[in-house]
Amino acid sequence: MTSQASDGPTIGELGEFGLIAQVQAQIGGNRHVLLGPGDDAAHVSTNDGTFVVSTDLLVEGRHFRRDWSSAHEVGRKAAASNLSDINAMGGVATALTLGFGAPADLPAEWALEMVRGFELECSHVGAHIVGGDVTASDAIIIAVTAMGDAPRPVRRSGALPGDVVAYAGDLGLAAAGFATLSRGFRSPKAAVEAHKVPHPPYAAGPQAAGAGATAMTDISDGLLADLGHIAEASGVAIDLDSTAFVIPEAVATVGEALGRKALDFVLTGGDSYALVATFSSETNLPSGWTAVGRVSDGEGVTVDGQPYDGPEGHQHFR
Amino acid sequence: MTSQASDGPTIGELGEFGLIAQVQAQIGGNRHVLLGPGDDAAHVSTNDGTFVVSTDLLVEGRHFRRDWSSAHEVGRKAAASNLSDINAMGGVATALTLGFGAPADLPAEWALEMVRGFELECSHVGAHIVGGDVTASDAIIIAVTAMGDAPRPVRRSGALPGDVVAYAGDLGLAAAGFATLSRGFRSPKAAVEAHKVPHPPYAAGPQAAGAGATAMTDISDGLLADLGHIAEASGVAIDLDSTAFVIPEAVATVGEALGRKALDFVLTGGDSYALVATFSSETNLPSGWTAVGRVSDGEGVTVDGQPYDGPEGHQHFR
Repeated sequence: MTSQASDGPTIGELGEFGLIAQVQAQIGGNRHVLLGPGDDAAHVSTNDGTFVVSTDLLVEGRHFRRDWSSAHEVGRKAAASNLSDINAMGGVATALTLGFGAPADLPAEWALEMVRGFELECSHVGAHIVGGDVTASDAIIIAVTAMGDAPRPVRRSGALPGDVVAYAGDLGLAAAGFATLSRGFRSPKAAVEAHKVPHPPYAAGPQAAGAGATAMTDISDGLLADLGHIAEASGVAIDLDSTAFVIPEAVATVGEALGRKALDFVLTGGDSYALVATFSSETNLPSGWTAVGRVSDGEGVTVDGQPYDGPEGHQHFR
Repeated sequence: MTSQASDGPTIGELGEFGLIAQVQAQIGGNRHVLLGPGDDAAHVSTNDGTFVVSTDLLVEGRHFRRDWSSAHEVGRKAAASNLSDINAMGGVATALTLGFGAPADLPAEWALEMVRGFELECSHVGAHIVGGDVTASDAIIIAVTAMGDAPRPVRRSGALPGDVVAYAGDLGLAAAGFATLSRGFRSPKAAVEAHKVPHPPYAAGPQAAGAGATAMTDISDGLLADLGHIAEASGVAIDLDSTAFVIPEAVATVGEALGRKALDFVLTGGDSYALVATFSSETNLPSGWTAVGRVSDGEGVTVDGQPYDGPEGHQHFR
C-alpha cells in the first residue's frame, strides 16, 4: 500500500509521547493561541473573547469493546473523557463536535444509541453536539472535540513549592474495573461500572479554578503519571501521603481478589477522570477536594518520601 | 465481536445522510448553540464572544491513498477541507485540533511530514494546530476540527428569489484529476495536483460575507448537490447558465481523453472546495466571483432551465 521509503523510526519505535514531542516541535503559534498543545486543553482567543478546546480519538478494540460496553456506555465515556479535559482547565464545556466512522453493516441503532449516551453525558454540564462528520471505516472510530468557557484557565505549569496537592473524584475504581473485566469477571459492579462510564467531578474543576488552584489536570494515565506532568511543567517536586487517600470499597475488594495492593489502583490506575490540583497552603479547599500531598523544590513525584514501588503507569492497566 | 441485537437498518442501508438526519433529531441545543449541525460550520457563543467550528474525519483508503499522495499532500488536503468549511461561513480559521491514528509500523516521518503539510496549509490563513491526540489504529485516521472567527456567519438558508448565484475558485479540476488517477494516468498535472491538494479561495469567503452574501457553501459533494442544499435550506429554486462557467483547460483535456463532457466535472465534481454563494442583484460581486445563475421561487436546481442530464453527484467521482 505504501510507497514511502523509511530510514527513520516507526511510530511504534518512537512511542506515543516521542511522536507528540516531535509533532509539537513543528507547530507554530499566532496571536490567537494563548495556550497551545501540551495541557489538558488549549486556550484560544477569538476576535471578541476566548474559549478552551480539547480533542480525543477513540478506536474500537483499543478504547472500548462492544462486548464489554453498550453503545450508550461507549457514548457516555467518549463524552466524559473530553468533558473532563475542559473540567481540568477549570472550564465548563458548551459545545462538542463528533466524528463517527463505522462499517456499513453496523446497526444504525448502535450509532443512535451511542449518540444518545453522548448527549446524556453532555447534559450534565449543559453542553451539546454542534457538528459532526460520518464516514465509512473498518473499525468504529469516535473523534470528539470539546469546547468551552474557562474564565481563568488552570494550566499544569503553575504549582509552587509549599502548595497543597488535592484530588476530587474517585481514584482507582475504573482501573479496578478494567482488571476485573480483563479476567472475565463482572463484579464488583461499582468498579466495572466506573470503567464503562466514568463519573468526572464536573463541579470540582470550576470550583478549583474559582478557589485559585495553581495547577490542575485530570487523571487519564494514572495519578502518579499525571502528577508527573504537573511536576515537570511546574519545575517542582511532589510528595504524596499514602494514608490520606480514600480507597473505594470496590477497589479494596478487587485488590484482595487479585492479590494486588489497592493503593496500586489508586495511584497508578488510568481513566478515572478524577481531578488533581495544587493550591496555596492558605486556600480553603472547596468541598469534595481531599488534601493528599505537598509541593516542594526539586523534581519528580514520591509517595511517603520514596519513589513508588509499584506499576508505573496506565500501560499496566490497558 | 458485537453482542448487539439488530432489528433495524444497518448504517449502510440507512446511508450517510439518513444516519445524519436521525442523529440530528436527537441533539438538543442550549443558549451557546447559535447554529447547530447542518451547515458548513456551527456557530457557538462563549461567555464573551462567538466562534465557528467544523469537523472532518478522514480515513486512509477512503479519503486518501498513500500510493497517490505524499504525506505532505495528505496533510495539506486534510487541513484545506476543514479550512474551507470555515471559509464557507465567511469566516477565518484561527485554531485547529488534529487527532491521528496509525499502525505502529508507520514511519514516524510520514506523520511528521503530514503535520508539516497540515501546518503549511493552515499558514495560508494564519491558523495553527492547538491540540491533538495520537492513538494506534489499523488504518491511518486523521480527525480535524477547525475553529475560527466569523463576524457575520453566512448560512445556507438565506438565499432569496431574485438573488444572483456566483462562485469563486476552480470547479471540476479535482474531479477531473480523480478520474485521471483512477484510470492510472498521471496527467494533466493541473487536474491531478488539484485532486491531491485543493486550493480553496480563502480570501473569497470573508469577502463574500463582507459584501452581504445571503447564502454560501463550499463545493465538497459537487456544485449541483451543494447548491441543492442551499435551495432546500432557503426554500427557493436555482437555475444556472451553463455558458457562464469558466472551464479550466485541464478539465477540457480530461473530458476529451475520457469521452466525457467537461461540464459534468464542473457541475457535479466533488472536493473542489470552491465556494458558491448567493447575493442580492444589487450587490457588486467581489473580485474573483463569477455570476452563473439566478434564484427564484420554487424548488430544485436546474441548468439552462432543465434538470441536468448527467451524473448526479459526487458518488460517481469517488
